[in-house]
Amino acid sequence: MNAKKESEDIVSGRRDFSERTERITESPIRRIARLLEEAGEKESIISFGGGAPSLAPPKDSMEHVAKKIKEESQKSVSYCSTPGSLKTRKAITKVIEKEEDVQVDPEKEITLTHGGTQGLYATLQTLLNPGQEVIVQDPEYVGYPETIKLAGGKLNRVKTTWEEDFQMTPEKVNEAITKDTEVVMIISPDNPTGRMLTDENLKGIVEIVEDEDLWLITDDIYKSIIYEDKEFTNSRHFGARENTVTCSSFSKTASIPGMRLGYTYGPKEVIKNMTRLLQYEALCIANPPQLFAQHFLREKGKYKRKYINETVVPTYKHRKDIMKEELEDKLPKAGFSEPSGAFYFFVDMNPYMEGFEDEEDLSTTLYEEEEVVVIPGGYFGNEGKNHVRFTFVSEPEERIREGITRISEFLKS
Amino acid sequence: MNAKKESEDIVSGRRDFSERTERITESPIRRIARLLEEAGEKESIISFGGGAPSLAPPKDSMEHVAKKIKEESQKSVSYCSTPGSLKTRKAITKVIEKEEDVQVDPEKEITLTHGGTQGLYATLQTLLNPGQEVIVQDPEYVGYPETIKLAGGKLNRVKTTWEEDFQMTPEKVNEAITKDTEVVMIISPDNPTGRMLTDENLKGIVEIVEDEDLWLITDDIYKSIIYEDKEFTNSRHFGARENTVTCSSFSKTASIPGMRLGYTYGPKEVIKNMTRLLQYEALCIANPPQLFAQHFLREKGKYKRKYINETVVPTYKHRKDIMKEELEDKLPKAGFSEPSGAFYFFVDMNPYMEGFEDEEDLSTTLYEEEEVVVIPGGYFGNEGKNHVRFTFVSEPEERIREGITRISEFLKS
Repeated sequence: MNAKKESEDIVSGRRDFSERTERITESPIRRIARLLEEAGEKESIISFGGGAPSLAPPKDSMEHVAKKIKEESQKSVSYCSTPGSLKTRKAITKVIEKEEDVQVDPEKEITLTHGGTQGLYATLQTLLNPGQEVIVQDPEYVGYPETIKLAGGKLNRVKTTWEEDFQMTPEKVNEAITKDTEVVMIISPDNPTGRMLTDENLKGIVEIVEDEDLWLITDDIYKSIIYEDKEFTNSRHFGARENTVTCSSFSKTASIPGMRLGYTYGPKEVIKNMTRLLQYEALCIANPPQLFAQHFLREKGKYKRKYINETVVPTYKHRKDIMKEELEDKLPKAGFSEPSGAFYFFVDMNPYMEGFEDEEDLSTTLYEEEEVVVIPGGYFGNEGKNHVRFTFVSEPEERIREGITRISEFLKS
Repeated sequence: MNAKKESEDIVSGRRDFSERTERITESPIRRIARLLEEAGEKESIISFGGGAPSLAPPKDSMEHVAKKIKEESQKSVSYCSTPGSLKTRKAITKVIEKEEDVQVDPEKEITLTHGGTQGLYATLQTLLNPGQEVIVQDPEYVGYPETIKLAGGKLNRVKTTWEEDFQMTPEKVNEAITKDTEVVMIISPDNPTGRMLTDENLKGIVEIVEDEDLWLITDDIYKSIIYEDKEFTNSRHFGARENTVTCSSFSKTASIPGMRLGYTYGPKEVIKNMTRLLQYEALCIANPPQLFAQHFLREKGKYKRKYINETVVPTYKHRKDIMKEELEDKLPKAGFSEPSGAFYFFVDMNPYMEGFEDEEDLSTTLYEEEEVVVIPGGYFGNEGKNHVRFTFVSEPEERIREGITRISEFLKS
């Protein structure tokens, strides 16, 4: 029993809440998602806000799921083992082998998760003891800090800026390491900046992790969404395989965020511990998303690659190009590094901050006055001060132009 | 960084695992589920093991989901807010009001969860601080002890026996309370015993919870599956509404365990704290199961009640009656209390233990020699010594008779 809380909302007496939930804060992105949901689908609002894919999921795979649910209704909604059906795990590991040239044992080195979010949560719960530190980039994905805190961990932020393409360098990581450091966390392509780590930096970070015998978490959620002629490199090619745990998901790649399907792979001992947690946290993963994945990944990912290469990447790349053109044209003093992958521009708005208290004030004003949603950079760490994040995947070309024009006109006035 | 582990499986150096995952053990039920999955669908094995419903889910609701997935593929797999879509929450709270005469605010007092399991996990994570105690019945649901441990809590078991119909009485709860007690947990109908708490005992426990200002968790997962002329009573009718958090799920009721849909409701501050946790643990709940629930619960649950009253309860009641008859006839010295609801007989096998080391040895032998699966009672607490749990929902009449006959013949020889 803790000391009583002073908040008037908290009930009195013996009952209290756990410190772990008391000390975390609501994700601002979720707050915005809820606001938008509550506001309904108002056509006049242009959203550069959330990171939900805007494309329809692949038709054949969805029809496959529908058919199974209809024709094999009982089997389609049965329990499976905690790490997921072996069939699904094999489908995933085959594609990882084919596309990334990395072998993963489908029986022992991978577990499915309820989206990438649960993968990160369970990984951090499995690796971290209270007081241990996680090195992350600043700006960082908005979900990291609280998920680290929930595992009792401490955030150790490495500062990066758009002028240096938000690169997390080995030098910076080295400098940040303390005696409490347990995990280094990387994500490439990145949210909120869209940058990819250079192979040189990736290699250097892997070497540090190996030398210092730390854990490396690689968040590969955007690995299939890459523009221009860049290519994704699995960090294991530079070593530290026994130190590395990878979280990924189908939400962005297959445009199925609300199916909730992710996966985590790594050394078998990690997966074993994590599975023990997952059985009490979630029991097992739902079956319909697994039916989806089995279809989507068939022929070692051939169908998936077709969807990605012919639909996802061309559509989003076009929108990225439009947004870049508009930003350069209409907000010429804004600073940004062109994204190599993922869904976002992380834009330095310092030259436009006159009259605004901070980036939150700027974002709120743009929403209230111009009905354009952007996310305040401060949500992503200390380096997000006077920055905002623009998502370019939510709106089609004309509305991207319209949204940036509205912002530009408003900032002129 | 912890002291290095001695297990040869644990990698050396700085990297280690969290104590929270090191100290929990794999659920024995999950282990059996995995064994059975691995063994394949061997027709000769008769399973009185797992608690999965054996009926097909309601056809119209499954077809509704299939249709939505096919025709509104993008919308059907979109993100929703962390507590779930308001439409789903309203569908659930309307049925609770109609069936249990309890009002729940759909906006603030309920959240959807990834099955009942995540509801329990998140509730305990929200209410418990390390060292605090949870009073549970012994025997208890196999998932409770480790889920309580994961939240840092301690188990305080209240002994019950079949001779007293496994009743958890106010007197026993009173005796068990210590200065560290934070939560009392009840489940009715119960797993593993099938008993329902009498209204008198329920009322007495609620009064203690109120007097001592403890939390009460009611696990209502089997509330719709009740035999004979018994009726479910929501504990809130006896008070302690501000102390009570209820977890439930659609897995057993709607025969959709692999859709993963549950819900938790309680005081708004509990749901608020829990939602903050859930957004980092799971982000949001999948959409297809919500489409299912919206259909299944339409007309304030009329369709659901039809499925329960015309399909679920008659089918399972018949099987229960058959199993009772067989147990009385073929294992006349076995002790049990007839279940009032849920899926199980919890049987005292003491008179048949000669030649067996313990109930685990008995269960293993029955599986190996007779291909009949029963669950060792010890998995459910100290009071399960020399007991086994029989599920009666997994097999049809003839196979129930066949299974008990095999056991009886074997024990005779």
